[in-house]
Amino acid sequence: MTASFASLSEFRAVLQAMPMVDAAALAGAAARNGQLTKPPGALGRLEDLAIWAGGWQGTDKPHCDRPQVIVFAGNHGVVAQGVSAFPAEVTVQMVGNFHAGGAAINQLSKAFGASMSVHALELDRPTADFTRGAAMDEAEVVAALATGWNAVDAGADLVVVGEMGIGNTTPAAALAAALFGGGGASWVGRGTGVDDAGLARKARVVDAGLALHAAVLGDALEVMRCLGGRELAAMAGAIARARALRIPVILDGFICTASAAVLEKTVAGALDHCVAGHLSAEGAHGKLLSALGKEPLLNLGLRLGEGSGAALAIGVLKGAIACHSGMATFAEAGVSGA
Amino acid sequence: MTASFASLSEFRAVLQAMPMVDAAALAGAAARNGQLTKPPGALGRLEDLAIWAGGWQGTDKPHCDRPQVIVFAGNHGVVAQGVSAFPAEVTVQMVGNFHAGGAAINQLSKAFGASMSVHALELDRPTADFTRGAAMDEAEVVAALATGWNAVDAGADLVVVGEMGIGNTTPAAALAAALFGGGGASWVGRGTGVDDAGLARKARVVDAGLALHAAVLGDALEVMRCLGGRELAAMAGAIARARALRIPVILDGFICTASAAVLEKTVAGALDHCVAGHLSAEGAHGKLLSALGKEPLLNLGLRLGEGSGAALAIGVLKGAIACHSGMATFAEAGVSGA
Repeated sequence: MTASFASLSEFRAVLQAMPMVDAAALAGAAARNGQLTKPPGALGRLEDLAIWAGGWQGTDKPHCDRPQVIVFAGNHGVVAQGVSAFPAEVTVQMVGNFHAGGAAINQLSKAFGASMSVHALELDRPTADFTRGAAMDEAEVVAALATGWNAVDAGADLVVVGEMGIGNTTPAAALAAALFGGGGASWVGRGTGVDDAGLARKARVVDAGLALHAAVLGDALEVMRCLGGRELAAMAGAIARARALRIPVILDGFICTASAAVLEKTVAGALDHCVAGHLSAEGAHGKLLSALGKEPLLNLGLRLGEGSGAALAIGVLKGAIACHSGMATFAEAGVSGA
Repeated sequence: MTASFASLSEFRAVLQAMPMVDAAALAGAAARNGQLTKPPGALGRLEDLAIWAGGWQGTDKPHCDRPQVIVFAGNHGVVAQGVSAFPAEVTVQMVGNFHAGGAAINQLSKAFGASMSVHALELDRPTADFTRGAAMDEAEVVAALATGWNAVDAGADLVVVGEMGIGNTTPAAALAAALFGGGGASWVGRGTGVDDAGLARKARVVDAGLALHAAVLGDALEVMRCLGGRELAAMAGAIARARALRIPVILDGFICTASAAVLEKTVAGALDHCVAGHLSAEGAHGKLLSALGKEPLLNLGLRLGEGSGAALAIGVLKGAIACHSGMATFAEAGVSGA
């Protein structure tokens, strides 16, 4: 299925028609959870996770046999403002590393049995510097959303989206600031490792973007177009497609979450099929997750991107689902209940 | 290799002769970490974990291909004091469930490719009620330590120990109180789900045990004998054997950690080959981990035992090791460093 939208207004209509969780499957999974050979609640958050996955997959016995990791890469005109510790050519070099199997996300995908695909979005044509104009025109942002939409495998039972793009913590901070308020300083972080001067520069750059695009800040999809980037829009497109297919999604770190937030700010509830994989060490990820009502599964100080934190959390979800769908009930095992 | 100790004093001597981490391998793993295709520190705690595992395994490229999960089960005379929400016969029923493959730990072991073995320790002969006498005599506690010692597969590259024993959060709280001070009330928790009256009863039972065995509280191995249990001693024996073999260990929850603490209080540094798998919702696990200087990898509200939290953390360690040992270096990938 190719993308069913050709404009931002059509994409908005797609979001407004999203399917909801399967209430019967959710209730069935909760009922099954109550019969498993363990004291009530003893598996803590694993129980909630398995029930949630069952609700979205439409079964009381969820599965995680075909997880899909999708990495999107893009380049950013705003790097001209000196917002990254790495040069822009690293984006294409890292895409080469992804294809060669040498990056962290390759190892994590393999470790958790996930398929992995990489989509490089016009790396030789960076987005415009958002301090001077809109990062993308409508055709560009729609094309990026469609790349994400089309990248999701309809047979996957879990989706993780990740990104690579030198400089992309700056557009991510700009999205967060535009969507949730507060100036640049309250959302920027050190990214791949900028110093104090770099951090202050990032905040000024975000503030300049917010000022230039003040007229569109009330429209989240316009915010993505003016302040975002191709890999950010592609992640949002993939998350939307997973929702259309009722496939659960694990969100990665700051950049992924900021991109996802565009969907939630467009239609409330758009991220109900998403769980936060981890709390990143980058910028204000915790604040962003709180604003979205998401509690991260892991908190291990990762700040790599690529989908790495979310891919690591596949292990947690696999464990939760293995317990829920594989354990015996008290009746099956002949174990006395409390 | 059968256990090389026949008394508590011989076991103490074994602990005093434990091998230390391989400093050259540790340095080699740290050097490798610095060359991988990621910004420095971007994998957060995963980097520390992989380096630590390399140091213990004696290689700059650690592996997690043969993890072993070992579950020990025991029964406790102290259940006569009304300290558990479940009846004592559940211990043997759950051992049957382990053998049949129906418990949470079976699913988690399978999900993370771990072998799993179960050792039931004289379930028809509970330990003595520690409010009336020593839980075990020296022969009994040494036999339990030896069961743990002999249960470790010398070919394993990671060990997880877990337990099942109705009532065993009470001896675990007694160990913690004896080793770290504070009365019963500061260490007991709700276990499988006792009510407020049960919780108060557990605190009184621990205090009674501390009073009766006041003379031995300065000797951690005697504390294990007088206040512990067979499965608790077996876990300590297995952790000691893993150390003798320089196999990294992931600690589980409150009961496992209290058992492990007996080793640390016998010889400082005895748990350097151990990482805390998770923060349990049981009792004062966080306080116990802090006392041992251990930071848990996961915090998901689990309180099941069986080794479940530690088994879930195998996924984290697998991810860490996969990244460390599988990623390309900047030179290999032709990626520009910062």
